Amino acid sequence: MTKKISLLGATGSIGIQTLDIIGSNPDKFELVSFSAGLNIVKVREIAATFHPQIISVIRQEDAQALQIEFPSIRFVHGKEGLIEIAARSGADILVSAVIGSVGLEPTLEAIRAGIPIAIANKETLVAAGDIVMEEARKHRVPLLPVDSEHSALFQSLNGENPKRVSRLILTASGGSFRDLSREELTNVTVEQALAHPNWSMGNKLTIDSATMMNKGLEVIEAHHLFDMPYDRIDCLLHKESIIHSMVEFEDTSVMAQLGSPDMRVPIQYALTYPDRIPMQNAKPLRLEEIGQLHFEKVDLVRYKALALAYAAGREGGTMPTVMNAANEIAVSLFMDGRIPFVQIEEIIERMMDKHETITAPDLETILETDTLTRKMVYAMVK
Amino acid sequence: MTKKISLLGATGSIGIQTLDIIGSNPDKFELVSFSAGLNIVKVREIAATFHPQIISVIRQEDAQALQIEFPSIRFVHGKEGLIEIAARSGADILVSAVIGSVGLEPTLEAIRAGIPIAIANKETLVAAGDIVMEEARKHRVPLLPVDSEHSALFQSLNGENPKRVSRLILTASGGSFRDLSREELTNVTVEQALAHPNWSMGNKLTIDSATMMNKGLEVIEAHHLFDMPYDRIDCLLHKESIIHSMVEFEDTSVMAQLGSPDMRVPIQYALTYPDRIPMQNAKPLRLEEIGQLHFEKVDLVRYKALALAYAAGREGGTMPTVMNAANEIAVSLFMDGRIPFVQIEEIIERMMDKHETITAPDLETILETDTLTRKMVYAMVK
Repeated sequence: MTKKISLLGATGSIGIQTLDIIGSNPDKFELVSFSAGLNIVKVREIAATFHPQIISVIRQEDAQALQIEFPSIRFVHGKEGLIEIAARSGADILVSAVIGSVGLEPTLEAIRAGIPIAIANKETLVAAGDIVMEEARKHRVPLLPVDSEHSALFQSLNGENPKRVSRLILTASGGSFRDLSREELTNVTVEQALAHPNWSMGNKLTIDSATMMNKGLEVIEAHHLFDMPYDRIDCLLHKESIIHSMVEFEDTSVMAQLGSPDMRVPIQYALTYPDRIPMQNAKPLRLEEIGQLHFEKVDLVRYKALALAYAAGREGGTMPTVMNAANEIAVSLFMDGRIPFVQIEEIIERMMDKHETITAPDLETILETDTLTRKMVYAMVK
Repeated sequence: MTKKISLLGATGSIGIQTLDIIGSNPDKFELVSFSAGLNIVKVREIAATFHPQIISVIRQEDAQALQIEFPSIRFVHGKEGLIEIAARSGADILVSAVIGSVGLEPTLEAIRAGIPIAIANKETLVAAGDIVMEEARKHRVPLLPVDSEHSALFQSLNGENPKRVSRLILTASGGSFRDLSREELTNVTVEQALAHPNWSMGNKLTIDSATMMNKGLEVIEAHHLFDMPYDRIDCLLHKESIIHSMVEFEDTSVMAQLGSPDMRVPIQYALTYPDRIPMQNAKPLRLEEIGQLHFEKVDLVRYKALALAYAAGREGGTMPTVMNAANEIAVSLFMDGRIPFVQIEEIIERMMDKHETITAPDLETILETDTLTRKMVYAMVK
């Protein structure tokens, strides 16, 4: 029996690596549906290779054109299309690999349809973690982390009593600018920011890694996924990215998951959990070749975005939504060359300062806050 | 409900640390019986503190004298006494912390009585691993490892499918002489050998750590405990002893257990498994303070005892018994100042060379081989 997979965000970094795993294990996995954005060349290629039943794209005209080309596949589009892929394509598991809060509604619909979710879209949990986790509990739907850090925590917690956890320890590479001081960050370019030392990731994620907002988003994600208070989630600089994260227990034992940096490993684990299968073309970890692993305290003054994320997480309510939306727009403005790197943090901080938190917001309030924040950031920079 | 504990070897290093855990958690653990050797001062102290029901000592005259002092405790002695403590004292779990193959028969009796065993006595598994594991399977008795390395493997395997393991990786500190070449080993003293860089252990274990025969015994122990072929058990030099061991899975994921070097952690875990309880007065691991972890290939020419242990393990039958018995006597001869350090390995190698392996030996054959080997080593050195 193959496992039927729906994939939101097939043309992104996680999406492509998910397809690699599906393609390498045709006896185990089958792609039944996927969504993509505007990269129609890539959509064509995936359609021809995997022959899914349904494909969703952003624009109606793309859907119509593709429908003529691939008459045996059903094409849908837009927000409704995403929801169809997520919740109504007969999948055994949904891989949510879209970037940004666009993943929120499809994810919620999948949960309500009882479909287990391999979640790579951390913004969903950041923007609306309380709602998503409550729905998941209500519908008894497992959320399987795909992020390497959360997969490491999930694997370290496997077989353990969660009540005995004393700390979650997220490791952080420090990103592209880890050897620069705050002063030296002023003139960095987009190209420099996109050169991540360890991981091959999408652009948004690589910039988030350079500001360390990525770690901040992960802290909030970990808070929700593992139901852990913020004062028991720590970050640790570990520049080799070999220990992917750790869990400390009350008896002082620390469980960790290690490996060569390869996103396919946590993606595949989410698809095979609780079992494992061999990883094709992977580089096994040889610590004797690496020789040394380094660890360092994270400086929250140097990495201001991380401090902002902790603050937003602790504040709760709509504040993480504001932080996340401000970050998404600020990063895209930086990548478009419209603001310098250091202004990403400034924009997030200003938006958070302006915001009056609404506690226990419903989904509508979250979506409104998200939209409003994006508009305000654009207005601020114009 | 407290867990009733029998303790073989109460006055040794593991025994004392086990008593520390029992004493720190009187609501969870109760010492119902223990054995000790000739350290009667310590026996008196433990008897007065813990008030067990039965105590076994080596000599009949000690048992008789103590019986008058402690009329409410029953005193037994000798080999029969050990078996009574192990198998007939109404315990929920036996901690087998005696040193050497003297632990073999009591352990087997406990298994036959259906008592779960926290096993710190690695020589039992080395000398008679096939028999012990077969009895444990037959009687469905769990063997819970106490050695920090095997506890780390056990914790890393927790919740996992054992069929997906590709390698067990035992970490090794390298012992007291890790920075010396083979040539420099010629004139080392007993005092130098007893100064282990990381762990506070008993003397025999510290010498075994210096020759790295300890790692060899652990490889054989791991082979039996986790039913793993020798070519999938590797050793890795890791001088900080922070990663206590690792398991590599088929998907290239590596699970590891870390902690400050403190034998009480794995001892307590064996007593609380599958749960954990807080560790009293323990030092939590702070990798940011340690800063660096180092890893290096183990050189089997430099560490000849480890190569001998792999050879004995692969040969199987009575060969590991011979290796273990030769090592025990050679270490005691070294500690008595009768042979130089490097001769420990030479004695083991010569005894192994002389030995014609008996395959699938029964317990009697193993015990005879053990006794004969000890005599031969003494005769060789005289």
